[in-house]
Amino acid sequence: MSEMKSKLRIIPLGGLESIGMNITAFEYEDSIIVVDCGLAFPEDEMLGIDLVIPDITYLQENLDRVKGFFITHGHEDHIGALPYVLREINVPIYSTKLTNGIIEHKLKEHNMLQKVKRKVVSYGQHINLGCFRVEFIRTNHSIQDAAALAIYSGAGTVVHTGDFKVDYTPVYGDAIDLQRFGEIGKKGVLALMCDSTNAERPGFTNSEKKVGKTLESIFSDHKNNRIIVATFASNVDRVQQIINTAYQNGRKVVVEGRSMVNIITTASELGYLQIPDNTLIDIEQLKNYPDEQTVLITTGSQGESMAALSRMASGMHKKIKIQPNDLIVFSSNPIPGNEKAVSKVINDLYAKGAEVIFHDAHVSGHACQEEIKLIYSLVRPKYTIPVHGEFKHRIAQARIAEELGYDKEHILLINSGDVLELDEAGAEVVGKVPAGDVYVDGLGIGDVGNIVMRDRQHLAEDGIIIVVLTMEAGSGQILAGPDIVSRGFVYVRGSESLMDEAQQVLNETVFDMAAEGVTDWGKIKNQIKDALGDYVWKKTKRKPMIMPIIMEV
Amino acid sequence: MSEMKSKLRIIPLGGLESIGMNITAFEYEDSIIVVDCGLAFPEDEMLGIDLVIPDITYLQENLDRVKGFFITHGHEDHIGALPYVLREINVPIYSTKLTNGIIEHKLKEHNMLQKVKRKVVSYGQHINLGCFRVEFIRTNHSIQDAAALAIYSGAGTVVHTGDFKVDYTPVYGDAIDLQRFGEIGKKGVLALMCDSTNAERPGFTNSEKKVGKTLESIFSDHKNNRIIVATFASNVDRVQQIINTAYQNGRKVVVEGRSMVNIITTASELGYLQIPDNTLIDIEQLKNYPDEQTVLITTGSQGESMAALSRMASGMHKKIKIQPNDLIVFSSNPIPGNEKAVSKVINDLYAKGAEVIFHDAHVSGHACQEEIKLIYSLVRPKYTIPVHGEFKHRIAQARIAEELGYDKEHILLINSGDVLELDEAGAEVVGKVPAGDVYVDGLGIGDVGNIVMRDRQHLAEDGIIIVVLTMEAGSGQILAGPDIVSRGFVYVRGSESLMDEAQQVLNETVFDMAAEGVTDWGKIKNQIKDALGDYVWKKTKRKPMIMPIIMEV
Repeated sequence: MSEMKSKLRIIPLGGLESIGMNITAFEYEDSIIVVDCGLAFPEDEMLGIDLVIPDITYLQENLDRVKGFFITHGHEDHIGALPYVLREINVPIYSTKLTNGIIEHKLKEHNMLQKVKRKVVSYGQHINLGCFRVEFIRTNHSIQDAAALAIYSGAGTVVHTGDFKVDYTPVYGDAIDLQRFGEIGKKGVLALMCDSTNAERPGFTNSEKKVGKTLESIFSDHKNNRIIVATFASNVDRVQQIINTAYQNGRKVVVEGRSMVNIITTASELGYLQIPDNTLIDIEQLKNYPDEQTVLITTGSQGESMAALSRMASGMHKKIKIQPNDLIVFSSNPIPGNEKAVSKVINDLYAKGAEVIFHDAHVSGHACQEEIKLIYSLVRPKYTIPVHGEFKHRIAQARIAEELGYDKEHILLINSGDVLELDEAGAEVVGKVPAGDVYVDGLGIGDVGNIVMRDRQHLAEDGIIIVVLTMEAGSGQILAGPDIVSRGFVYVRGSESLMDEAQQVLNETVFDMAAEGVTDWGKIKNQIKDALGDYVWKKTKRKPMIMPIIMEV
Repeated sequence: MSEMKSKLRIIPLGGLESIGMNITAFEYEDSIIVVDCGLAFPEDEMLGIDLVIPDITYLQENLDRVKGFFITHGHEDHIGALPYVLREINVPIYSTKLTNGIIEHKLKEHNMLQKVKRKVVSYGQHINLGCFRVEFIRTNHSIQDAAALAIYSGAGTVVHTGDFKVDYTPVYGDAIDLQRFGEIGKKGVLALMCDSTNAERPGFTNSEKKVGKTLESIFSDHKNNRIIVATFASNVDRVQQIINTAYQNGRKVVVEGRSMVNIITTASELGYLQIPDNTLIDIEQLKNYPDEQTVLITTGSQGESMAALSRMASGMHKKIKIQPNDLIVFSSNPIPGNEKAVSKVINDLYAKGAEVIFHDAHVSGHACQEEIKLIYSLVRPKYTIPVHGEFKHRIAQARIAEELGYDKEHILLINSGDVLELDEAGAEVVGKVPAGDVYVDGLGIGDVGNIVMRDRQHLAEDGIIIVVLTMEAGSGQILAGPDIVSRGFVYVRGSESLMDEAQQVLNETVFDMAAEGVTDWGKIKNQIKDALGDYVWKKTKRKPMIMPIIMEV
């Protein structure tokens, strides 16, 4: 009698409805491993929220089976939730050297370095953990040391690309290990989980080296300007190319912005960044050099309001004043949603007389359609599960798979929280676990939920009117008030007649209730809300939050 | 002795810092005329604001000199502030037929049709008003009946393009009157005010006819689908082409979305839209036809949350359910700032199994670089004043002017509020008048200013904590409270220990003050704010608005 094999379960807990917050559980028999543990940045309507992290209820409920985290690379949308999640699920983290360095820096900031086990993994190395074996495969991305994972289980092999591109001529290290993808594919792969971010884009993503060429030509066209280059802090290869170009042009380099300084420190320490001697100078020394001998590398390429470049553009930066001889190069593209913020910074820079270049000095870190086809053709999985992207991106990858001959039953467009069970015989969603956004606001994790958010949205829209009233216990006689106070509603000094009339409406309401002998607080509050709400709506077509407060003496 | 000629003054009151809210005053001797009177849509940080209109203080202060409004075309960013501004400055409006029709519809909604004088102007017609003569010149744009203006004054001629493109093969009417631009240019033009919106884009904007070709091929590729086309309500030519394509394919047409129905009604009545008999059906009749015989034209191409398409996508539309046999065509591009909202709608449509096309079924309504060069070469102005656009767009036009040989002194990059004085002898900014954003929120105009907005932003970020306290008059003894109520801060039921401790901090503060005999309300309020604020910050790293209210019995 042949042994009955178990099925593999794949449970994405985030990352399938939007870009960001990537985290996926793999479950086989008594073992669970987790790939990535990212955060998302808040959407506009998430008022006051700093970060969004995944709901890990399912992992918490299966705590004894969770063996470890495997991290594909060091970007926030893949590692950012670790400090929060590790408080609940303290298991070892496996990652490549630079990724581990970035994670360690993060854990240090959260005072968790002593508490968490970390293991640095080399490309080609296999990690045995519970029922799983996991192999790290070299890829290319907009950060060094990115890895794809081959996840071996009794039910078959899953290849997870992480975020990747195919760069035949990377700035640092080697090109993606296409041979190994082919070798693993040849042995048979149950499922491929492939990056969808650029699946709408035809063709190939350009090599990072191309940016180096662009930078060279920009520098040679602007020999007399001070040059300020804004880019992503984590793109160490980009920073390396900017430094190289600066050095070749006899310019000193200043690095500005906290996250930029952090990552450069980590990358230099670990040997991922080579800075020629006497090239880096302190921002305080900048004034000792003429414009044409300096370059400033800075954060703020996404128009983030508190980042260094935004502060320079708005004249709020303490040490750098933008002047007409400055050339600002955006070595970046706006991430969707940031377009207006970036435009604002560009406009502010122009208004200060500076020159701005915001095209062509960037390449993406994600695979376009031809690269995705290449990976499919090397891996040749039985099933494909497009990941990393909004629905439209994953649909675009599904189309590519269809073009390559996959039928719809083998293309699995699942959602976060879906429990996908699969083996050679079939694949189906067999259940649902909790998944969704957990808001981080200041030190609070999850204490701002739907109710608080709805209140914030209401307050943001039309402000608040507070009505206070002091009543005598027992008799219900009104001893003080009703008084009205408002915030965020109207400019009170300019709207005196409105506020006076509102007070009158309120007085009448309260008087009538007293005359009727109403003493039930709930009833009194509702009447106040209704009467004042109706009056305000009639007069202003606004619906401020109305909040009656009754005190008893 | 030769007579001393007056100078012309050009005073933009909006439209030069961002896209939208176009309005410019022209002043010569005792006469002021105003070109356009547009609104802007609120930025993300303008919480609760419905519309933004220009500050017209300068016009109000010179009321007796203001002779009339000249409107270039019927888009909201050129006409939308009229109902608000006309209440203060009731002078005649001059515009072409369709523009006038749209303005009349708007005035009717505001019950102002009887109060305002309107004059329909034909292309080529000259209007004498005060010291000015104004000629309307035919242009092309994404709405019909768009006009450029030649403004003749004693100091010289100004050509204002309005929003325009060069369409050699327009869907309705004739191509832009390039001959007349040339003729006026030949006679000598003092200044050109030219649309900068697309000045960053090389080449030529495609003809509206190209969209017709694209629609034809989409319809012929999707013969079995129900087709839903989302586009801008005001693009009557686009609507015409969709109707034509539907008709040729034997499909009935449903129009959905209030603004779409409004504009189609106005355009049909005035003869700008030809709808074949038996083509338009009511939305209720849709169910009587098979999918392949229907087309729905709808609003919502910008992802506006309340528009018809967004409601369909989210399953909130009462009459249209999206189903897998639907093809949705976005005949539009996202306006900067709307990218994420549009993506959300696309994702929702995909998630319902529909097919979505969101590329190539649109052309812009604004001139690209080669068209701008063409207009410069026909008009050959002495000065150029790039208009309509953010600073980066106007800088891009300035570069084009430089390429064409203009020196920097003749390219005038002025700001809203600047008083530009010019004649053949020179041009300079001689002063500044009030200019800026006036917020419309519900029925209120300008009653939400910086203070109210800052409060809304504060409330939105971290919510509010209200502290109430009843004191005895005279003695200052505390009769009730202090009580704490919060909204938008934390989910109180999940944060009981935090709120209990906060209450304790508050009690201690109030007790200490009572012990010290503090009875000054201002002092009491400040102490409460400080003590509670410090505690909350320490515990949560949040800064809710803290609002102490003291009542006296």
